[in-house]
Amino acid sequence: MNSDRLKALTDGVIAVIITIMVLEMKPPSGHDSAALAALLPQFLSYVLSFVYVAIYWNNHHHFFTLAPKVGGGGVMWANFHLLFWLSLIPLATAWMGEHGFQPWPMAVYGAVLLACSLAWMVMQAAIIRAQGAHSALRQAIGADWKGKLSPPLYLLGIGLSFAIPWAAAAAYALVALWWLVPDRRVRHVAARLEDDQAG
Amino acid sequence: MNSDRLKALTDGVIAVIITIMVLEMKPPSGHDSAALAALLPQFLSYVLSFVYVAIYWNNHHHFFTLAPKVGGGGVMWANFHLLFWLSLIPLATAWMGEHGFQPWPMAVYGAVLLACSLAWMVMQAAIIRAQGAHSALRQAIGADWKGKLSPPLYLLGIGLSFAIPWAAAAAYALVALWWLVPDRRVRHVAARLEDDQAG
Amino acid sequence: MNSDRLKALTDGVIAVIITIMVLEMKPPSGHDSAALAALLPQFLSYVLSFVYVAIYWNNHHHFFTLAPKVGGGGVMWANFHLLFWLSLIPLATAWMGEHGFQPWPMAVYGAVLLACSLAWMVMQAAIIRAQGAHSALRQAIGADWKGKLSPPLYLLGIGLSFAIPWAAAAAYALVALWWLVPDRRVRHVAARLEDDQAG
Amino acid sequence: MNSDRLKALTDGVIAVIITIMVLEMKPPSGHDSAALAALLPQFLSYVLSFVYVAIYWNNHHHFFTLAPKVGGGGVMWANFHLLFWLSLIPLATAWMGEHGFQPWPMAVYGAVLLACSLAWMVMQAAIIRAQGAHSALRQAIGADWKGKLSPPLYLLGIGLSFAIPWAAAAAYALVALWWLVPDRRVRHVAARLEDDQAG
Repeated sequence: MNSDRLKALTDGVIAVIITIMVLEMKPPSGHDSAALAALLPQFLSYVLSFVYVAIYWNNHHHFFTLAPKVGGGGVMWANFHLLFWLSLIPLATAWMGEHGFQPWPMAVYGAVLLACSLAWMVMQAAIIRAQGAHSALRQAIGADWKGKLSPPLYLLGIGLSFAIPWAAAAAYALVALWWLVPDRRVRHVAARLEDDQAG
Repeated sequence: MNSDRLKALTDGVIAVIITIMVLEMKPPSGHDSAALAALLPQFLSYVLSFVYVAIYWNNHHHFFTLAPKVGGGGVMWANFHLLFWLSLIPLATAWMGEHGFQPWPMAVYGAVLLACSLAWMVMQAAIIRAQGAHSALRQAIGADWKGKLSPPLYLLGIGLSFAIPWAAAAAYALVALWWLVPDRRVRHVAARLEDDQAG
Repeated sequence: MNSDRLKALTDGVIAVIITIMVLEMKPPSGHDSAALAALLPQFLSYVLSFVYVAIYWNNHHHFFTLAPKVGGGGVMWANFHLLFWLSLIPLATAWMGEHGFQPWPMAVYGAVLLACSLAWMVMQAAIIRAQGAHSALRQAIGADWKGKLSPPLYLLGIGLSFAIPWAAAAAYALVALWWLVPDRRVRHVAARLEDDQAG
Repeated sequence: MNSDRLKALTDGVIAVIITIMVLEMKPPSGHDSAALAALLPQFLSYVLSFVYVAIYWNNHHHFFTLAPKVGGGGVMWANFHLLFWLSLIPLATAWMGEHGFQPWPMAVYGAVLLACSLAWMVMQAAIIRAQGAHSALRQAIGADWKGKLSPPLYLLGIGLSFAIPWAAAAAYALVALWWLVPDRRVRHVAARLEDDQAG
């Protein structure tokens, strides 16, 4: 099974997720600087979610460069499972943005991030299983510290939501920053693989 | 006629349908756990519709792997006809989700699923006719029990909506689960066809 | 200039137009059959607009099969001009659907269809000019009766809107039906061209 | 790293931005000519933003024709950075359209255009750095007067917003018109490059 349409659908869903998050930010009803300032919590929520969605797209892009032929069966459903949780990010973002640093919206936002990270690990495992013993992806991700440590960090953020909500926001932002640092190994292997195919 | 753009348009429409269904779930106006719990019927409706749309995409993907060259005339309009009914799923989902287990929304939801399944059979027939006597798709689908039995099951659900609404929901969910079991024959033939093209 | 991205963008915009038109149909606030029946004018408006958008996509698909290499400069802006008017169809559809057969919404709907048809002729001319003396598209469209007679028919519909609004609706529907009849010449030439490229 | 998916995602995001801007124009609640006329400021805002988004897509298309192999690392994040600011155009357009020529909405609209133009310059620099000493893009853009002069012109518009708001609108429109004039050098080099690849 070829993964071209799987990638095209994923690109489409992620493109709409990004732009739908902006739709949830309603234009202010007033037209002065105070009306604009009141939009700030929603804007910051949007920035954080945009970065998360971009990170997922980026990783998806690298992973499927390492697995160009794996598009059927289990991988396809694992990908839909991931898209399901990603598709809830706009809703969680809007709820968090509209209520500032309130415990429940902060916790639900963290829970959606947690579910996305677990769905990611499931998809990773499905690809590696489909590739078999010499999986290029398995070699590329190595010990996968980022993947393994993110879920506990989201759990920490969910717990913090009910005690010090702003600390939960800080936890989510820090995990995003950590992921922004490029994953040298995956990209290195991906680049080599592309050279092999081209040469 | 090449089917590349037909597939690209279908991917685009399905990607937007998925993400628009989330838009119909409005962020709760409160910010406590009760506000979140009130979202549950809409969330469950979304899960069911997401699974249905994913199943249609999945089957569409497999079918057009078996029919890579059939993109013009009748097939194109049969595909638009299918997209029309699929595009009504978000509306039916929102109506069902906002009113819980009420008879009319449950029945309308089932009617949209029924129309989608009939549109699917029409498209299947159009592809087989376009492929001619040795249609790879006809061989792959075989007796097509799933396709033939789904419409009566949706009809049953529509009837149940006015008597025991939750049983209608159960019927729709069971059909979805049935379809989630992969269609071995189609995927087998599709995989073999891809190997032939590559080898 | 290659036209691949022009086609991809057009597919994306048309996919979103289709699905956004459904968003404009709000789920009824009641949950009985009367609430459902009240949705009928909006539903019929949606059907008509869906068919129009599908026709435009269909024709776009056939045209660019005849002009695979023409994606730059004038053609690109002519395509954006067409997309601009197509993008107004959801708004015009929603206004018409919410107010039934009222003169102004009927006339504005016709005006948007008129603008789309003129934008189509401009794009057709731009492609033919880009292809030069032996334009495959020019041969394929021949006398182009559909293209030339549609604008006067829309004008007629706009005029009827202020006298007999339902007759305007009938005029718009009849033009759509006329276009639904496949354009044999264009498709014939397109199919031959594809054979030439493949063979 | 191949740039195919980067282009596909960008096409998707831009397609949704265009169509979402129309969603922000609500169908008038009345159905007479006065209700239609009240939509005029929003319509004009939409026209201006549509043109801007089309210009960005056009330039993106030309740039990546000159840089077909540059899709990883810095370029990808520079592209997401650009998409982030482009994604704010619908919100800024809606705020400006709903309040006519008010100072703050006019200034915020200009600020979003300014941020887009700076993000564009960052992406241009990232591509040129990735291409190295003989960058085809660097040769194509030459002195890049348009790119360098646009930010000061947006700044001028932002300043004018608080003094003569309609003059700010005029400034934004004039910059758009200037960009509409095709960039002969980039397109010339792009066309030559395509010929080289084909020949």
